[in-house]
Amino acid sequence: MIKRDFKRFCVIISGPTGTGKTTICKKLIEKNNDFFYSISCTTRKKRENEIDGKDYYFITKEEFEKRIKEDKFLEYAKIYNEYYGTPKEPVFENLKNGKIVIMDIDYQGKMKVAEKLKDSVSIYILPPSIEELKRRIEKREKNFMERFKEALKEIDLWISYDYVVINDEIEKAVDEINKIIEAEKLKRERLILERIEK
Amino acid sequence: MIKRDFKRFCVIISGPTGTGKTTICKKLIEKNNDFFYSISCTTRKKRENEIDGKDYYFITKEEFEKRIKEDKFLEYAKIYNEYYGTPKEPVFENLKNGKIVIMDIDYQGKMKVAEKLKDSVSIYILPPSIEELKRRIEKREKNFMERFKEALKEIDLWISYDYVVINDEIEKAVDEINKIIEAEKLKRERLILERIEK
Repeated sequence: MIKRDFKRFCVIISGPTGTGKTTICKKLIEKNNDFFYSISCTTRKKRENEIDGKDYYFITKEEFEKRIKEDKFLEYAKIYNEYYGTPKEPVFENLKNGKIVIMDIDYQGKMKVAEKLKDSVSIYILPPSIEELKRRIEKREKNFMERFKEALKEIDLWISYDYVVINDEIEKAVDEINKIIEAEKLKRERLILERIEK
Repeated sequence: MIKRDFKRFCVIISGPTGTGKTTICKKLIEKNNDFFYSISCTTRKKRENEIDGKDYYFITKEEFEKRIKEDKFLEYAKIYNEYYGTPKEPVFENLKNGKIVIMDIDYQGKMKVAEKLKDSVSIYILPPSIEELKRRIEKREKNFMERFKEALKEIDLWISYDYVVINDEIEKAVDEINKIIEAEKLKRERLILERIEK
């Protein structure tokens, strides 16, 4: 028998605000029980529809800074005076247990994670159109114009990612990401081959 | 609108004799009309079940050598005193016409094509077991032991390919190759993005 296995890896998903990243990640996790969703820590206030320990781990600034000192983050950043970070331990724990780790993080975070975990896969999500992006941000962000301008600038970041997926229809985008992950599992670099002779 | 397209590419499929490469390629082509199968030229004798212009272009040694001089091959080699080669023109013609070009060629051919077409994708097909490989070669090859020893040596060539697929069930192998190609279409390097503003 030729037995095959593959080295587990992280999948980093980024994209401008309003491209539907979060929904995409939720759907990915629902459909695959060999995926683990990396939940970030943040010091920003919990929004009404968010659940602590599901959307984020909401912690205090003191606690966050303590964890920084203890080297507990794979990456972290301060954005609009609030901290955001990826806890290190669950990532390595789940890779070890055979999971593929999905991360919904921004460009800065991606750069740091890709530097540390060179075999990670990065996917950039783009909106189907600028008009659609505008509509989506308008619907949910308070300081709309500021966020929209930012999102416009962020579009060009696709150039730094391994793959680019356009979120025109959510199911199609999820399907494309699944195909990317399936193909990545078959990459020679990740392959562990064992010949078991009878 | 954000319009996307991708740069067309070649998919090189190799594997030891008896791994089912040819059947896999046939099924790939049947299912996808944006794939073009690159038919090789050879000077070896046509087997009974083979069709000229479908399995190979069967040509004379004189004709083959004339085409070598005219630089008509993307790659060619002499194996057991017979020539095998990939005609250059259909490959570039079909890439230009929006097709993905599928090539069933050996390791030597792969090295030459990958050198010339750096964005090509290479996939190595492995048998599910050594016993199965032996059975398959036994069924169809005359100088069985010689071919089997050769196939055994060829197994280790997977290390030079981008992806490795084990042909345990043919439909599963074809499905995996399709996923690889779908994912490759989404690679940033192949991406052609156009913003079309209203």
